[in-house]
Amino acid sequence: MSGNSIGKLFTVTGFGESHGPAIGCIVDGCPPGMELSEADLQDDLDRRKPGTSRHTTQRREADEVHILSGVFEGKTTGAPIGLIIHNTDQRSKDYSTIMDRFRPGHADYTYQQKFGIRDYRGGGRSSARETAMRVAAGAVAKKYLRQSCGIEIRGYLAQLGPIALELKDWDAVGQNPFFCPDPGKVPELETYMDALRKAGDSVGARVNVVATGMIPGLGEPIFDRLDAEIAHAMVSINAVKGVEIGAGFDSVAQKGTEHRDEMTPQGFLSNHAGGVLGGISSGQDILVSIALKPTSSLRLPGRTVDIHGNPVEVITTGRHDPCVGIRATPIAEAMLAIVLMDHLLRHRAQNADVQSATPVIPAAPE
Amino acid sequence: MSGNSIGKLFTVTGFGESHGPAIGCIVDGCPPGMELSEADLQDDLDRRKPGTSRHTTQRREADEVHILSGVFEGKTTGAPIGLIIHNTDQRSKDYSTIMDRFRPGHADYTYQQKFGIRDYRGGGRSSARETAMRVAAGAVAKKYLRQSCGIEIRGYLAQLGPIALELKDWDAVGQNPFFCPDPGKVPELETYMDALRKAGDSVGARVNVVATGMIPGLGEPIFDRLDAEIAHAMVSINAVKGVEIGAGFDSVAQKGTEHRDEMTPQGFLSNHAGGVLGGISSGQDILVSIALKPTSSLRLPGRTVDIHGNPVEVITTGRHDPCVGIRATPIAEAMLAIVLMDHLLRHRAQNADVQSATPVIPAAPE
Amino acid sequence: MSGNSIGKLFTVTGFGESHGPAIGCIVDGCPPGMELSEADLQDDLDRRKPGTSRHTTQRREADEVHILSGVFEGKTTGAPIGLIIHNTDQRSKDYSTIMDRFRPGHADYTYQQKFGIRDYRGGGRSSARETAMRVAAGAVAKKYLRQSCGIEIRGYLAQLGPIALELKDWDAVGQNPFFCPDPGKVPELETYMDALRKAGDSVGARVNVVATGMIPGLGEPIFDRLDAEIAHAMVSINAVKGVEIGAGFDSVAQKGTEHRDEMTPQGFLSNHAGGVLGGISSGQDILVSIALKPTSSLRLPGRTVDIHGNPVEVITTGRHDPCVGIRATPIAEAMLAIVLMDHLLRHRAQNADVQSATPVIPAAPE
Amino acid sequence: MSGNSIGKLFTVTGFGESHGPAIGCIVDGCPPGMELSEADLQDDLDRRKPGTSRHTTQRREADEVHILSGVFEGKTTGAPIGLIIHNTDQRSKDYSTIMDRFRPGHADYTYQQKFGIRDYRGGGRSSARETAMRVAAGAVAKKYLRQSCGIEIRGYLAQLGPIALELKDWDAVGQNPFFCPDPGKVPELETYMDALRKAGDSVGARVNVVATGMIPGLGEPIFDRLDAEIAHAMVSINAVKGVEIGAGFDSVAQKGTEHRDEMTPQGFLSNHAGGVLGGISSGQDILVSIALKPTSSLRLPGRTVDIHGNPVEVITTGRHDPCVGIRATPIAEAMLAIVLMDHLLRHRAQNADVQSATPVIPAAPE
Repeated sequence: MSGNSIGKLFTVTGFGESHGPAIGCIVDGCPPGMELSEADLQDDLDRRKPGTSRHTTQRREADEVHILSGVFEGKTTGAPIGLIIHNTDQRSKDYSTIMDRFRPGHADYTYQQKFGIRDYRGGGRSSARETAMRVAAGAVAKKYLRQSCGIEIRGYLAQLGPIALELKDWDAVGQNPFFCPDPGKVPELETYMDALRKAGDSVGARVNVVATGMIPGLGEPIFDRLDAEIAHAMVSINAVKGVEIGAGFDSVAQKGTEHRDEMTPQGFLSNHAGGVLGGISSGQDILVSIALKPTSSLRLPGRTVDIHGNPVEVITTGRHDPCVGIRATPIAEAMLAIVLMDHLLRHRAQNADVQSATPVIPAAPE
Repeated sequence: MSGNSIGKLFTVTGFGESHGPAIGCIVDGCPPGMELSEADLQDDLDRRKPGTSRHTTQRREADEVHILSGVFEGKTTGAPIGLIIHNTDQRSKDYSTIMDRFRPGHADYTYQQKFGIRDYRGGGRSSARETAMRVAAGAVAKKYLRQSCGIEIRGYLAQLGPIALELKDWDAVGQNPFFCPDPGKVPELETYMDALRKAGDSVGARVNVVATGMIPGLGEPIFDRLDAEIAHAMVSINAVKGVEIGAGFDSVAQKGTEHRDEMTPQGFLSNHAGGVLGGISSGQDILVSIALKPTSSLRLPGRTVDIHGNPVEVITTGRHDPCVGIRATPIAEAMLAIVLMDHLLRHRAQNADVQSATPVIPAAPE
Repeated sequence: MSGNSIGKLFTVTGFGESHGPAIGCIVDGCPPGMELSEADLQDDLDRRKPGTSRHTTQRREADEVHILSGVFEGKTTGAPIGLIIHNTDQRSKDYSTIMDRFRPGHADYTYQQKFGIRDYRGGGRSSARETAMRVAAGAVAKKYLRQSCGIEIRGYLAQLGPIALELKDWDAVGQNPFFCPDPGKVPELETYMDALRKAGDSVGARVNVVATGMIPGLGEPIFDRLDAEIAHAMVSINAVKGVEIGAGFDSVAQKGTEHRDEMTPQGFLSNHAGGVLGGISSGQDILVSIALKPTSSLRLPGRTVDIHGNPVEVITTGRHDPCVGIRATPIAEAMLAIVLMDHLLRHRAQNADVQSATPVIPAAPE
Repeated sequence: MSGNSIGKLFTVTGFGESHGPAIGCIVDGCPPGMELSEADLQDDLDRRKPGTSRHTTQRREADEVHILSGVFEGKTTGAPIGLIIHNTDQRSKDYSTIMDRFRPGHADYTYQQKFGIRDYRGGGRSSARETAMRVAAGAVAKKYLRQSCGIEIRGYLAQLGPIALELKDWDAVGQNPFFCPDPGKVPELETYMDALRKAGDSVGARVNVVATGMIPGLGEPIFDRLDAEIAHAMVSINAVKGVEIGAGFDSVAQKGTEHRDEMTPQGFLSNHAGGVLGGISSGQDILVSIALKPTSSLRLPGRTVDIHGNPVEVITTGRHDPCVGIRATPIAEAMLAIVLMDHLLRHRAQNADVQSATPVIPAAPE
């Protein structure tokens, strides 16, 4: 497969299936000397973990992470950091009814086509369970970015099905099970999700992620542009069908005079670029938005074929998220952190000599 | 920099600036034994090249490509294919007025920040001129995909500023300077572009790309998913600010019962997935849509700073595309071809043994 | 660090320190459908493990490997294979005397210089303990190569200090603690090692590795030549200071008429090339020989400096191999297997179309 | 093929055949701001180029290199550096007699097996002609290493067939056509080569390369060790069959007390390690030695098969080096430079924070 690694200098390589004994990853390339403990990773893992409200899957996983290597006397050593989470609440019997049929819209069919074999228990490798390791690895990157450069990465739910949500209060995001940035909208979300769950259906979502305190210079044109690598990382998350940087698809109808972010000594006057120009960070906030499709594991019957090609009906009775987008916020943050971390290291490698005479203007006027 | 390569097994590495003596690339990993000549590459290069209508930049480049290696007696040998295009119509004097100031929305600022030096002539490395080599390399991939698997890759302009365009006729796309798939809309586009050019402004665009005749199995989860790599490739194109696979951002408001593509022995009943499930191709058409921002080189003055940090005004008087999206269609096709080619090879590597008992269902019922 | 992966398509990424809780690796890229169990890996691990005779370190490790993922119902799935071995016999107190001084000839000094911090317990990441994971990963490759292509990989001790050993009997190799291929020489080796151990000194060794049943075509010129990648893999093993392919350094004094391996329809008439021509396997046996230096952890005092730069004397009192070359045989086999496996997959990727009309001649006349 | 790149951050990707119109490469990852012109590259190219004495091939190539990109106003910009050399003295007719038969010991056979097609003119891609681009790329690395860190890389011929050569005078190396470091031995070399050429045979050689002025910390354990990557780079050179770091194969018979390089505040007391401990540079000189086999293109007839499998005799009548080792010195220097450059950048990436309290001891006492 050999597709289970991301990052060139800060490299995360993962393993593990939904119903295997454990999931894990190796974080290779973290600079030495940073204080790191399990507690640094557990916060974000707890934000992502299932079963914390009635609106996500009822699978109960402590998602307790163990650091197996790369840390000595509380500090990173430059050696690879081995991380592991033991699976504790697998119920493989739930999946016996779908072992020989493909859920429409699910990876069942393509895994079987590609590999000729698949671990059908909970989706096996294609399960979103693996995203726990992204969050753990992302937490390492987040900590380094914060301590070394002052870069902060945060995300929120921007839309759930038909309900659009505005960023009104960053603090509110952590205070409701939806990562909703508008506290007044939480009851509406609850009502919507209760009805959806009752109906046995699922729904899509939009998640926004923002990096503040950015530094200019990250990104390696022409192919390893920062925005291209962000797009790669985001679409590698289960269920993501679209990604935007800055103005995104709104750029299509914009005029150049409207889109371009004018510059003054006091800072940029707007941020349609989303913090990336020519594939390189400008110092402005990085603005990313992603679309997540509705999950394909539904209690409502759908037409499909079985592994013999016969037409059959499928119903999924296991425990699933009716909106995978809800738990996607910490995952998207983690992926942005991993990409920025990788590019911070890459930038240092090649540009240690640069003593730019160019004035760096602020992200925005005060 | 070391970011000028794309693809793991079918690898394209590029070089060249807008106003240097030549641009070029090395295509490494093309299987041996395929007939290949310059003519195979020139068609797509001619579709992309500047100066073919009044609606694109008036720079005149023949964009005549030379194959320097990797082909012997008309066939590929498995050795790397060296490609070169000599620049012929540089007018460096055009750029003297902007050498010490940054165009808002342009890579000027970030290149200077990152590298402490920049080739300001025509944007240097950040110029869209380098995309000619993408098109040449993509033509190699396109030919192999067509001959070896029957995969066809085509694109069209889906929106220009406010004007949305529907796919009415694939044949029409090649018969107008806009890659417009709706012949009846061409006059409206001409009128719009003439006014835009007169105003000195620019505008964004949306381009759609489709791969038909697909085979299932391409893509390597979890990070090197096919859709993730497509997103990477697309956002690596100059001016791209967003990418969608299949239903894209429409997925956000979809229910699971609506989004999931039901399957019958006669084929998939819809294609919201855009041909990718779990990061692996399903055999359905690959559907990709990208947003391109308006170009930042405008004749209308904008506020900016110079390299000393002083506030100045900037006007761009060189030859530029008022809508870079127009010429982006063959570029987007090329990038999709490069990604599919790379993943075709990767799939063959690991799955030569697979004799899937699984019935492959058609892309869609007849 | 990001240097803990090897292989492009068959990728092994490792983690773990000598005295941490566990060591492990991720094997990414194994084709699906191969039967695999812990027992397949344990055989080679047992061949490498410490404490099995008085001639190696007395650390006692069961080296019991666990497969955490990538295998379902006894077969590989194409998903990454997570492997882990828990450390059980660390005695960190042994190392307290050397925590602040550098053993001459050891990685102590360079790790401290590079990272500014080091896990001094048992050498931390620089310990040969990590080679257990190479052996486990190599066992996966060995099994696939054997089953899929009939390639067999075997090694033996070719020299221990002053005692050269000839390959007289492959079966004998597994029947003595030295991997000695000449049963008559075993008593001499025992006597030598007993005296060496008593003296508190250590000694170097030469190990030979051979792949039989080869197929032609593996290797990707010009940089990823098969022999170049073998050299990389071999020198990545702790203590290796030299590597030879085929005639190796004997080539220096050879004439072309002597070195070249003449060919007949019945096969090659010699194998000075060691099975690689132009970086590509010829179908002949792959012949590799490596030099291993004497271990640097000695009971005999040596001059060195401490971490403050003061001149000090150092003595190592922990448990160490007086000849690391003894246990290196299964490690070298594993590295050769990993490289061949990677190149088998790479070859399949690009050359699926090749229907060579060229006659493949046998490795050698009967 | 996709094996035509080397280096992770300082990446060299090559193309070109012996008898094609041109050879070239792309050097990606050179830091910006370094003065660079063709003259910087031409010196080493002239040292390697054929036809400068009667002891090498009589092919006459000016090997004039052109910089096509990546340099602006005399300085590197951080953009990829495109390099090209046009072939001028191809005589394809020379090769017509061997187009259908395989030279024993040559890549003819393996290229045909792997690719099913081969450019037989002058060896095509397998020709040592491509090494000119290694030298050009290496010259970029050499200049950076010298200017940025004071690292110097030099090589010499250490043995030609039976004639061993001692390093007596670095200055002498450039003053004879053999890169011989012992001026008194030059007449013996001339006599030997004249006889060899007259006999129509060829012979092997040993080349040593040394890096002085090293800094500690380069190399990324465990797989991307500095010495492992040096071994990879060296064995990727045509005809290389062995590589040694430091004491190399002499380590086999050494005791630990003899091999270990003791340390004092005034410096290391010896350098058996060859400047690398645990895969990381120690600051001592890097010492590398390589074995080159005799060339396989001989005027003396040899037994072989033709492409139909029939037994035939082969004689090579083209222009060839009777000892490829003679011109290998600048190539080996270039490869060492490329590896050190890559690892310098990698080291900077991850260890920018390290303020080692450890005293760096000198390479050796004065």
